[in-house]
Amino acid sequence: MDPTAPSPAGVNHAGDATAPTNTTVTLPPLTLRDVPRLPAALAASAAPVATNPISRHPYFHPPSTFYISPGDVSLRHAFFDLAAAAPSPLVAYRRAGPREGLGVDPARARAALVTCGGLCPGLNTVLRELVVGLQELYGVRDVFGVAAGYRGFYGADEDHVRLDPAAVDDWHKKGGTVLKTTRGGFDLNKIVDGIVARGYTQIYAIGGDGTMRGAVAIFQEFKRRGLNISITGIPKTVDNDIGIIDRSFGFQTAVEIAQQAIDAAHVEAVSAVNGVGLVKLMGRSTGHIALHATLSSRDVDCCLIPEVPFHLEGKGGLFEFLYERIKKKGHAVIVVAEGAGQELIPRTDDQKREQDESGNIVFLDVGPFLKSELSRWWKREHSNELLTVKYIDPTYMIRAVPANATDNLYCTLLAHSAIHGVMAGFTGFVPGPINGTYSYIPLEDIAVAKNPVDVNDHKWAWVRSVTNQPDFVKSQA
Amino acid sequence: MDPTAPSPAGVNHAGDATAPTNTTVTLPPLTLRDVPRLPAALAASAAPVATNPISRHPYFHPPSTFYISPGDVSLRHAFFDLAAAAPSPLVAYRRAGPREGLGVDPARARAALVTCGGLCPGLNTVLRELVVGLQELYGVRDVFGVAAGYRGFYGADEDHVRLDPAAVDDWHKKGGTVLKTTRGGFDLNKIVDGIVARGYTQIYAIGGDGTMRGAVAIFQEFKRRGLNISITGIPKTVDNDIGIIDRSFGFQTAVEIAQQAIDAAHVEAVSAVNGVGLVKLMGRSTGHIALHATLSSRDVDCCLIPEVPFHLEGKGGLFEFLYERIKKKGHAVIVVAEGAGQELIPRTDDQKREQDESGNIVFLDVGPFLKSELSRWWKREHSNELLTVKYIDPTYMIRAVPANATDNLYCTLLAHSAIHGVMAGFTGFVPGPINGTYSYIPLEDIAVAKNPVDVNDHKWAWVRSVTNQPDFVKSQA
Amino acid sequence: MDPTAPSPAGVNHAGDATAPTNTTVTLPPLTLRDVPRLPAALAASAAPVATNPISRHPYFHPPSTFYISPGDVSLRHAFFDLAAAAPSPLVAYRRAGPREGLGVDPARARAALVTCGGLCPGLNTVLRELVVGLQELYGVRDVFGVAAGYRGFYGADEDHVRLDPAAVDDWHKKGGTVLKTTRGGFDLNKIVDGIVARGYTQIYAIGGDGTMRGAVAIFQEFKRRGLNISITGIPKTVDNDIGIIDRSFGFQTAVEIAQQAIDAAHVEAVSAVNGVGLVKLMGRSTGHIALHATLSSRDVDCCLIPEVPFHLEGKGGLFEFLYERIKKKGHAVIVVAEGAGQELIPRTDDQKREQDESGNIVFLDVGPFLKSELSRWWKREHSNELLTVKYIDPTYMIRAVPANATDNLYCTLLAHSAIHGVMAGFTGFVPGPINGTYSYIPLEDIAVAKNPVDVNDHKWAWVRSVTNQPDFVKSQA
Amino acid sequence: MDPTAPSPAGVNHAGDATAPTNTTVTLPPLTLRDVPRLPAALAASAAPVATNPISRHPYFHPPSTFYISPGDVSLRHAFFDLAAAAPSPLVAYRRAGPREGLGVDPARARAALVTCGGLCPGLNTVLRELVVGLQELYGVRDVFGVAAGYRGFYGADEDHVRLDPAAVDDWHKKGGTVLKTTRGGFDLNKIVDGIVARGYTQIYAIGGDGTMRGAVAIFQEFKRRGLNISITGIPKTVDNDIGIIDRSFGFQTAVEIAQQAIDAAHVEAVSAVNGVGLVKLMGRSTGHIALHATLSSRDVDCCLIPEVPFHLEGKGGLFEFLYERIKKKGHAVIVVAEGAGQELIPRTDDQKREQDESGNIVFLDVGPFLKSELSRWWKREHSNELLTVKYIDPTYMIRAVPANATDNLYCTLLAHSAIHGVMAGFTGFVPGPINGTYSYIPLEDIAVAKNPVDVNDHKWAWVRSVTNQPDFVKSQA
Repeated sequence: MDPTAPSPAGVNHAGDATAPTNTTVTLPPLTLRDVPRLPAALAASAAPVATNPISRHPYFHPPSTFYISPGDVSLRHAFFDLAAAAPSPLVAYRRAGPREGLGVDPARARAALVTCGGLCPGLNTVLRELVVGLQELYGVRDVFGVAAGYRGFYGADEDHVRLDPAAVDDWHKKGGTVLKTTRGGFDLNKIVDGIVARGYTQIYAIGGDGTMRGAVAIFQEFKRRGLNISITGIPKTVDNDIGIIDRSFGFQTAVEIAQQAIDAAHVEAVSAVNGVGLVKLMGRSTGHIALHATLSSRDVDCCLIPEVPFHLEGKGGLFEFLYERIKKKGHAVIVVAEGAGQELIPRTDDQKREQDESGNIVFLDVGPFLKSELSRWWKREHSNELLTVKYIDPTYMIRAVPANATDNLYCTLLAHSAIHGVMAGFTGFVPGPINGTYSYIPLEDIAVAKNPVDVNDHKWAWVRSVTNQPDFVKSQA
Repeated sequence: MDPTAPSPAGVNHAGDATAPTNTTVTLPPLTLRDVPRLPAALAASAAPVATNPISRHPYFHPPSTFYISPGDVSLRHAFFDLAAAAPSPLVAYRRAGPREGLGVDPARARAALVTCGGLCPGLNTVLRELVVGLQELYGVRDVFGVAAGYRGFYGADEDHVRLDPAAVDDWHKKGGTVLKTTRGGFDLNKIVDGIVARGYTQIYAIGGDGTMRGAVAIFQEFKRRGLNISITGIPKTVDNDIGIIDRSFGFQTAVEIAQQAIDAAHVEAVSAVNGVGLVKLMGRSTGHIALHATLSSRDVDCCLIPEVPFHLEGKGGLFEFLYERIKKKGHAVIVVAEGAGQELIPRTDDQKREQDESGNIVFLDVGPFLKSELSRWWKREHSNELLTVKYIDPTYMIRAVPANATDNLYCTLLAHSAIHGVMAGFTGFVPGPINGTYSYIPLEDIAVAKNPVDVNDHKWAWVRSVTNQPDFVKSQA
Repeated sequence: MDPTAPSPAGVNHAGDATAPTNTTVTLPPLTLRDVPRLPAALAASAAPVATNPISRHPYFHPPSTFYISPGDVSLRHAFFDLAAAAPSPLVAYRRAGPREGLGVDPARARAALVTCGGLCPGLNTVLRELVVGLQELYGVRDVFGVAAGYRGFYGADEDHVRLDPAAVDDWHKKGGTVLKTTRGGFDLNKIVDGIVARGYTQIYAIGGDGTMRGAVAIFQEFKRRGLNISITGIPKTVDNDIGIIDRSFGFQTAVEIAQQAIDAAHVEAVSAVNGVGLVKLMGRSTGHIALHATLSSRDVDCCLIPEVPFHLEGKGGLFEFLYERIKKKGHAVIVVAEGAGQELIPRTDDQKREQDESGNIVFLDVGPFLKSELSRWWKREHSNELLTVKYIDPTYMIRAVPANATDNLYCTLLAHSAIHGVMAGFTGFVPGPINGTYSYIPLEDIAVAKNPVDVNDHKWAWVRSVTNQPDFVKSQA
Repeated sequence: MDPTAPSPAGVNHAGDATAPTNTTVTLPPLTLRDVPRLPAALAASAAPVATNPISRHPYFHPPSTFYISPGDVSLRHAFFDLAAAAPSPLVAYRRAGPREGLGVDPARARAALVTCGGLCPGLNTVLRELVVGLQELYGVRDVFGVAAGYRGFYGADEDHVRLDPAAVDDWHKKGGTVLKTTRGGFDLNKIVDGIVARGYTQIYAIGGDGTMRGAVAIFQEFKRRGLNISITGIPKTVDNDIGIIDRSFGFQTAVEIAQQAIDAAHVEAVSAVNGVGLVKLMGRSTGHIALHATLSSRDVDCCLIPEVPFHLEGKGGLFEFLYERIKKKGHAVIVVAEGAGQELIPRTDDQKREQDESGNIVFLDVGPFLKSELSRWWKREHSNELLTVKYIDPTYMIRAVPANATDNLYCTLLAHSAIHGVMAGFTGFVPGPINGTYSYIPLEDIAVAKNPVDVNDHKWAWVRSVTNQPDFVKSQA
């Protein structure tokens, strides 16, 4: 493909050196993936249930352009190939933000916030902003935190903590989650019964992909029963492994803190004779943290991610590459995502069975495995040369920090977007930025959207140009 | 505007509670703002001047999808109102990235990097990555840093420092700029003569809006003389006051570090009886840093930006608001952008003259002005009540830090995007992300694109809901 | 003075290369500066008022060596010149720590904590540990924080806040002071009346030298009235300007944070042509922060402190030195303590009067003065050369941070030492480390003890060897 | 023991409430542990070999009090019990610092710096300051860094790198060691032969206790051969396990960074139902880092150190305590020094043999052991209750950081003290602060001085009062 060749599809690729030229083309049709609505909101489609109370704010007088219009949408893809023979249809989602007319009455709202799964920087900020936004923007006074995940809905009363702005005031400066989390436990009918019994009208579920799948089930059960209760999902995955949205909250904080671990590994490596610094970073199915941390650091000699297979020994393998790099530079730094190389680690029968029964892979710890394999190989192949391997696993030191400013801002916008959508009468959706525009995405789209690192893309190529690591392709003998 | 009303322009706004609905609409035509090319690249439009050497990389074997295709474009606006009566035409730019066929021969390239103006986090990373990318991706060995701005082109030989990857290896961990910068001095003909005399074929100019306007002039002079020399601008403005691109480099680092100043101001304020913490942040024509820092911090009671006028005394004024806030909370924190309230500060005749002659406003220091005016007003109006005002100006402590991981990554992608564009034969352009997609924008578009805070938008509304500050509208007596 | 010459005073200075030799000398007599006691403790001198409840701790069973013995003392000077002709008498203080027999009954104790003056890292830690130590070590439940300084003793009831371990749990992680502070206001009789009226038996006063002088007066008034109320002073001065004790709390944190400002000044200086970075650090009468920050940073070209006079213009002056340094290195970094060069700054008549009336010098701002004088001088003397001066005043960003680990530990030991002393029946004292040993020093000794930088010592010489700055001695014409 | 009882040994313990009393006592005799000298320095004892060149410094004109006098000594113990029946004799060391008359001629000096063993914050600062101090204070131009430990003395020429102030300028801002280190390898004769062959006259050996023992051997071999070569040891042990000196360099930096790990463990613990955060910190034979980090953090529920035995299961054991603490608070944080509980970990025969052969204990990893034992015990004893244990090993993230300001200053004073001592003609010594006074200590004293945590002291008692952990005494059945 030649950039100066005459272009297909009506694009004039020849410019001149004077000034930019303008060329006009016709786009394929656009499809809007709409958001579900509550029955009551649908029924009241001729007139809003209530007027947005922000218009009556004592201090702030929103201009007419403040509210999102019914036609406001965001494009899923912000770039495309005009020269493509069969262009994909364009997809759009509704823009997030406040609506002038509401689909629910905030005066009767009763909200429950529930978090599940592991820690992630920003979790407390999302909780704080849901509480503050509900009360200060919409006057909702009944906001409850549900401890211990979905099962808290059918748990004891003390699992439901009333929250107000004063109580959550400094949560955004705290790591972890003030609402304790647990994993597991999901009895759909008991959950929905519990929600109904307590009179909740809005559920905000913050959690990983299991939580999002649970939210889909709850959404469908609400619908089956004809309930006017909304459910909104806020994906919590520091790994950034959810598709459609630009990134997940906490991800950028994680990349920042990961620099400390890479710096330490680099210092250890360069301070030793034939030193290797090995850092394991979070990322079970995707290597985004490893990739971004590598690009930001620039001290990394090899970045291993789940999306790219590699082998250890033999021609073109990782160990041979490391040996050569050490010979050349005196040291090497490796960053490995926790999901990388899982297929290389021998599994005991127990570990295989666990895998069989649950249907999910049991993750084995790739960090100590790589360290011991490398040491064993080096001793065998280069027994008369020193080797020092220092292994760092910063996982809990990364995920427990408070969100940085970027993520704090992001969590705020996420939480407020969620609230505005719920107040508009939407349900079964996830708020999130798509190419920078906060939008509402159907929960069921999110539940299946993956976000692997595109290793055919030039972002991965940039990693490659930074590390100069090879393809680790097995040579055919 | 009612979100549930029947939609104009073919958008079906009624969904149901079951599943997202799909609606299809037709989009307005799209206009591509193309990038200028070098004369030689244009002349060779039938066949590339060279093949991209990345394809011959010893380690990395790019797949066919790696290269940017001639039809790849990015949309300027990622959201729009489908219901608008007269929709604006869509605008697109070329996607940034490596091209398979090149418009210039890297083997004959000779690049000059020049930086002008004040410090900005990430400056050294951009320089580092231009050097490393040129050499490691394209094999360009003649890369020079030009000290002291554009005038370095007609300065002494020692202003031109040969740079290679070893020399710049740790620059991304350093604040400031290793190439010293100065302001002022621009003699177009001497600059172009100097460029020609030294045989440069690629100029990378990193600087503020003056530097971008200079780059446009140099681009036009290159064209007038028919030279095969490319010029690329990389906007450096920590204030984020440049339009079209998503944000300028260093901006997010600045917002992070600004948190420290706001934290200190908050601590000082809450530790005193009737304490006020006042922080001045960067932002001459736009208040982005103030706005983002306010949203991230959440301890701010009032955020003053150039885009929003305010008055100090009297009904509805700043001081009355502060007094009430202090009565209520015991303290107050103010963040003021350096360009806010300029019209309130009395100017000496000298200061007025400076303004007249240069054509630019002379910025007066709003921080000490606010502090002294508030103290004076309080003494007059509330003489029997204590007041403690602590003023913090963290400007140089912010702009001198190294880039954080987010900005380091961003600077890398900017620098590599610039190189790929130059190698494709483009000139007179700026690389930058548009809605997340790295793109090439004609220099002349950038030179006039402003990026004020949209105070009719809900981002500013979010600030308002965080601070609960009033409109500061003057009451008509 | 020859290190190998035969020694006076019986010291054998000749060793050999084999092994260390042992020489024995006789020391001058030692004088113990004892701590005052409460009347009741004195009266009960034959038997303790109570037994230390730590011995009945449910978890911890202190060994017999745990308690401080009556003979335990610490030496004021840990080094001396054995060869001195007339050696100074040695001075000792009582060691701090828990006593087995108490001089007061903890069951009847009622403690008040009062803070005055500006912020200092660690202030909240001292408060926290007083509360926690009183309750958890000695079972004292009536602990109150008195807001707004000494005058809070005769203020409203709401100035007295009951504190308990749960309330203060995370105070050590917060900058500033949770008890608000103010300055000024001291009516001795009203204070002592207020203390008696509220039934306090222990006063812990945390503040600067004015607060310590106030504590002496209160101590004497207690004594005059024959009251069994103890008063303990905890000196709070980030400047480290109090004598006898090793250092004041918050000082090391301040030195750490000051590095950020010096780093920024250094970056600004090296990034400009003829760049000067100027940092003003805290230190009114002593230059300890400036000195320590300079030694820790090593990027400083000139360190100006109150103890060392300097002049600006002319032969041997600061500006000539800076010019030469800039010619040699291209830039210069200056650290100036706020009390340095006060005599150089022109004072208005008003400023002179203020000085006359209060008896204290009104501090003028040396930072902006130096900046403008240097710019003026350079313009006059070197008008054809560029100069860029960047001035940073990090004061409030330094003093508002939480204590670092070193200071947090120090504040804990200070607070616990204070409590143990009070429980032993002591009063009118200050706890503090002397050569590393926590000790009790009579308040009146502390109130007059200064701690200037010893500029005849080798610590200052080390600064000089780091900066290579001259003596700034005026040449006699 | 009653603080108010009449005192033995002539100490009047009764004060009064008015003013401090002065009592005078006679001290036991003082013994000076002197420093060995070079043969040439001894021979020239009547007159110095050279005059200190600092007196000829172009900028700095030291006053007469600047130089250390021959009688200047520091006391080993700064506190003692005046009431003790048989007081220990006092011990003193020579004060460190510049001497006016030198024992060696700096013009003929040739210095070698060698580092051995693991990383420690501040290592690069010590190296930098040795280079800078030797050259800038004494004009020594021949300074070499010896890579790879003592064996570098008989290694290849490229192991000896010439160092000058420009080369080491920013080393104090780097973690690790720019001179690579290795362990092991010590052939005394080859080392001394290599030193002689290269003409070194001063050896500075920086390392752990093995390195100090090696330095003693080298010192004795120098003496046996009658060589005028000095050797100085600078103890490098982040654990702070060396006696006599106040603390080892890097220790305070380690305690600071350890806070991050404890914070993370605390966040993980409080965010889970029955959460346990477990942090392993450095400290093989002593628990100083664990103790200081615990006191600084205050979030720790249990601090385990090598000096205090504990048992896991059963009445009064660790696990029972943790269970109770979790029942009470909902979570628990444990800090364990790496050398704690070694005797509890089952050893394989191989591990036992390693121990037998080398004479040293092979350290087993107590962190994972505690985690798995606790999980196993909980599952057995409390199978129906959740438990979440998060284990953090921050070792390499702590030891690889650059020194903080406190340690940077300390390393500077250490290095300069070493240089001044060597120039005075001393050898076989270690510089270090004793009760705050920099002193010279015979190498052989240091080599045997241990520094265990005093668990009968009130410092450990303070830990106990912070954690409220029990004695873990085994109940006798």
